[in-house]
Amino acid sequence: MRLRGRKGIRENLEQQEDLVVLDPGQYRGKWASLFGNDLPIHVEFGMGKGQFISQMSYKHQQVNFIGVDMYDELIRRASEKGRNVWAQEGVDTPPNLKLALFNIESVEKVFEPGEIERLYLNFSDPWPKSKHARRRLTHPRFLDKYSQILNDRGEIHFKTDSVTLFEFSLNSFADYGLQMTNISLDLHREGLNEEHVMTEYETKFVGQGMQIHRCEAIVGKEALDAYRKNRLEKYGK
Amino acid sequence: MRLRGRKGIRENLEQQEDLVVLDPGQYRGKWASLFGNDLPIHVEFGMGKGQFISQMSYKHQQVNFIGVDMYDELIRRASEKGRNVWAQEGVDTPPNLKLALFNIESVEKVFEPGEIERLYLNFSDPWPKSKHARRRLTHPRFLDKYSQILNDRGEIHFKTDSVTLFEFSLNSFADYGLQMTNISLDLHREGLNEEHVMTEYETKFVGQGMQIHRCEAIVGKEALDAYRKNRLEKYGK
Repeated sequence: MRLRGRKGIRENLEQQEDLVVLDPGQYRGKWASLFGNDLPIHVEFGMGKGQFISQMSYKHQQVNFIGVDMYDELIRRASEKGRNVWAQEGVDTPPNLKLALFNIESVEKVFEPGEIERLYLNFSDPWPKSKHARRRLTHPRFLDKYSQILNDRGEIHFKTDSVTLFEFSLNSFADYGLQMTNISLDLHREGLNEEHVMTEYETKFVGQGMQIHRCEAIVGKEALDAYRKNRLEKYGK
Repeated sequence: MRLRGRKGIRENLEQQEDLVVLDPGQYRGKWASLFGNDLPIHVEFGMGKGQFISQMSYKHQQVNFIGVDMYDELIRRASEKGRNVWAQEGVDTPPNLKLALFNIESVEKVFEPGEIERLYLNFSDPWPKSKHARRRLTHPRFLDKYSQILNDRGEIHFKTDSVTLFEFSLNSFADYGLQMTNISLDLHREGLNEEHVMTEYETKFVGQGMQIHRCEAIVGKEALDAYRKNRLEKYGK
């Protein structure tokens, strides 16, 4: 791979206005218009090289996806991945995918309250030192932000290979008062599920036999009501 | 160790009326009278050989403890352990400990609603086959029973070495709507805590470097109110 200067990357991104959003704050409250429809919006915070969000956008075409990262180079790589995944259909611009450059710290400047239906946090930085706990993307101060931007059907889908981040996150979700569901301590225990879309990290880790931890946290009132209706059915009578 | 016939064991237990309760149903609603005071009652379901409940009764003398198992031989072993632990104080009958023989299936026949303040489930049988899920002591049908007998300050303290039982239990607690707290995926990560009382299994497993999983589930309204008051304080501002 040829190394590119930062300026070269930025120019590359500027030429991809159909896919890349370099100034996402301007679409606050207007993402539906940008997509040109009212399909639900699912966002991945920290998409890295974009394998997950690209494949999700291709597999779930009745959902709009936004991949977020704060580094130009990752946005560039994800843009290549996104186009490659859709190229198999002869499509150059993925219709339901945007890649947005911003720091999640300022997420409330990018999304209006209720603008998002689902949030994916995949293999977020575990920030293992306790003095950095506030930087973990499942810290209650982030859950405050997420609760704002998620809508009535809002959910957080979280997965990680880090035992310590998972433990921290389970406690954070619980202490924040979120309803957890589908908690898995070894997502691939039963063998790989074809339906399950993996990130780059995950592909690598699972290949090494590492365990992936996952859970969902329900935020929206409508999602909570739907969950509560049949939450005990799977246990039988 | 000399093998004893079942009859010999039963005779042994019958001679230990000060410690062993062979017909616990007769004390339903009357455990406080049996202990002779109104101290809170903590119960361990499936105490095995009794190391945990014996040491707990010795370390926490302002609590009454009841160790429960359904096998005569385990009650006998636990009775030896209980007396041995207290012998260091020259006490023959542990004043705050009873060992009760019964099947947890019929726990509502042994305890009146609100008679118990805390329930310990330590290294319960994981019943790994899904067709046996209903036998797991954290199955919602057991949570129904526990919710009945626990009082307003009621909590369930659960630990296990089984990843699959822990995963099942987290989901069961969550689906049942219990507030979880102090979730740990590796209880001894930070080194052994002197305050932490271990079971026989735990001593062995930790010695082998295995991970112990633990969590608390809050059942009682007063316990829930107390928890909610400072649940986010540990995360800082």
